[in-house]
Amino acid sequence: MSKNKRVLSGMQPSGKPHLGNYLGAMKPHIELQENHECFYFLANYHALTTVRDKDKLAEMTTGLALDYLALGLDPEKTAFFRQSDIPEVTELTWIISTVTPFGLLERAHAWKDSIAKGTKNPTVGLFSYPVLMAADILIYDSELVPVGRDQKQHIEIARDIATTFNHTYGETFIVPEDLIKKEVETILGTDGIHKMSKSYSNTVEIFAPEEDLRKQVMSMVTDPARVRRDDPGNPDVCNVFTLHKIFNSEKNIAEINKNCRNASLGCVDCKKQILESIMEELKAARKKRIELENNLDYIEEVLRRGATRAREVATKTLDRVRNSVGL
Amino acid sequence: MSKNKRVLSGMQPSGKPHLGNYLGAMKPHIELQENHECFYFLANYHALTTVRDKDKLAEMTTGLALDYLALGLDPEKTAFFRQSDIPEVTELTWIISTVTPFGLLERAHAWKDSIAKGTKNPTVGLFSYPVLMAADILIYDSELVPVGRDQKQHIEIARDIATTFNHTYGETFIVPEDLIKKEVETILGTDGIHKMSKSYSNTVEIFAPEEDLRKQVMSMVTDPARVRRDDPGNPDVCNVFTLHKIFNSEKNIAEINKNCRNASLGCVDCKKQILESIMEELKAARKKRIELENNLDYIEEVLRRGATRAREVATKTLDRVRNSVGL
Repeated sequence: MSKNKRVLSGMQPSGKPHLGNYLGAMKPHIELQENHECFYFLANYHALTTVRDKDKLAEMTTGLALDYLALGLDPEKTAFFRQSDIPEVTELTWIISTVTPFGLLERAHAWKDSIAKGTKNPTVGLFSYPVLMAADILIYDSELVPVGRDQKQHIEIARDIATTFNHTYGETFIVPEDLIKKEVETILGTDGIHKMSKSYSNTVEIFAPEEDLRKQVMSMVTDPARVRRDDPGNPDVCNVFTLHKIFNSEKNIAEINKNCRNASLGCVDCKKQILESIMEELKAARKKRIELENNLDYIEEVLRRGATRAREVATKTLDRVRNSVGL
Repeated sequence: MSKNKRVLSGMQPSGKPHLGNYLGAMKPHIELQENHECFYFLANYHALTTVRDKDKLAEMTTGLALDYLALGLDPEKTAFFRQSDIPEVTELTWIISTVTPFGLLERAHAWKDSIAKGTKNPTVGLFSYPVLMAADILIYDSELVPVGRDQKQHIEIARDIATTFNHTYGETFIVPEDLIKKEVETILGTDGIHKMSKSYSNTVEIFAPEEDLRKQVMSMVTDPARVRRDDPGNPDVCNVFTLHKIFNSEKNIAEINKNCRNASLGCVDCKKQILESIMEELKAARKKRIELENNLDYIEEVLRRGATRAREVATKTLDRVRNSVGL
């Protein structure tokens, strides 16, 4: 139905990706490229609102490119580029900011949350972040933007801006739609309590060295009521079982479920099994990432080609916009 | 002392210039080019916060270029360009917005005034205007920015941003200084009550057709207590006399002062005299503007050359900035 619609997504460089990132964002992103025309960018302009170390920013940006390419992003199918290689988007940001109601941003959840949490010295960049995001979406004539439910508002802001602009200056922008991601089970961290997140130090890093990844998986908290090896376990409250449901075959899942409940399968062995499944899932990507790390020229080349393709669309949109407003 | 320092100023296109604009801004701007390296631009990005008509914006922008060139702006001395011909400034705007405290803009007088006045649907552009202004200043390594006292805060904001950025990322920007304009006597409008301003429809338009200009001058309100021709007048409360003080010789001023007080000079004659002085002052510029109107290719050529010169400086600064932050 939505075959070949143009999909836009910006990935913010944030360090080492974990299973939560992989299942919630990276994998679905990559799957979209089969039936859509994807424009994916490394959001390093956005990252400036949180990262203030030039080496770290550059390193994280390249790292994220490696991650996606290793996981199967196909630069022949998808336009893959650095946000900052298309500075045109900042010009569009200014132009649309002149039709964006101040109140619209004041009401943005992310901004309100950050104020409520007492963020020290919030910046103008943090506040006007949704305008840059809208410019990112609109400049590529994007039709669909994959987001989680919690980010739906940002797409609404982009839609509002596009609609207001079109109303003020005549039809100029495609009004984008959100593509709400299928709700995946929330991936808890190794602590079995919080959502998997770098800020809780409870992650399983998909590209960590094998030994580190093994330790992270083996440290996972299982059914807390199962104290001794021969206590029966309850898979329904076990985070390891959640992963089995994702990575294993129906048959194996049923087996594990049974054997946990009758205590014939212990947690250590159960974790060894999930480790194996995870390693199997990631095997090709982990191998490819190491190859790519040794071929950074290729990464640059890919991003350059992606930027050329993105710029072609961006400059056309911007010409249209400049013409609409009289610049 | 400040010979050859780099001076930056942005002129916002706003329609037909009047005596108040001429005396308060245009003339002093043009005088500065004798002893400074001036970068002057037509602030059409800024104008988007108020003008939402493409033809009007383009027309006003060209009109302002004509005005300045007619009044003696020398494009050999001064880099004279359209703001939107250097879109690099919008990239810098985004980058510095990520170190600009939100509170700094919230406290800006212009913003607070506009909220206090109940501006309907204030926009993000109106709010973040001072960040674009700071980017304009910083991207050209400007040392001095001529402003009236009421705009001093905008330069302080630019200084704050430059200082914070340098502190965060290492020395990158020249911290600009304000060049507070000599206080000129406020030019009242033809109503003799309000400051001369388009919004009061009390202007004397310096490039209006001669007949219109004559009518505007002859409509000036003089000493309201002088009712009949043979009443003595009081030059101290007469707006026409203020103009005589600006445009006339010491000797003539003394004469007019005396003859008004002893009623030997009537208001109509007095206004005819000031009209003559104004026409004399503007004669060359008015003639030149008509010539230039018929040579718009030349205007484009001038602005293109100005943009080339400005871009050379802007791209160097931006390279420095991108390197500082890791883009």
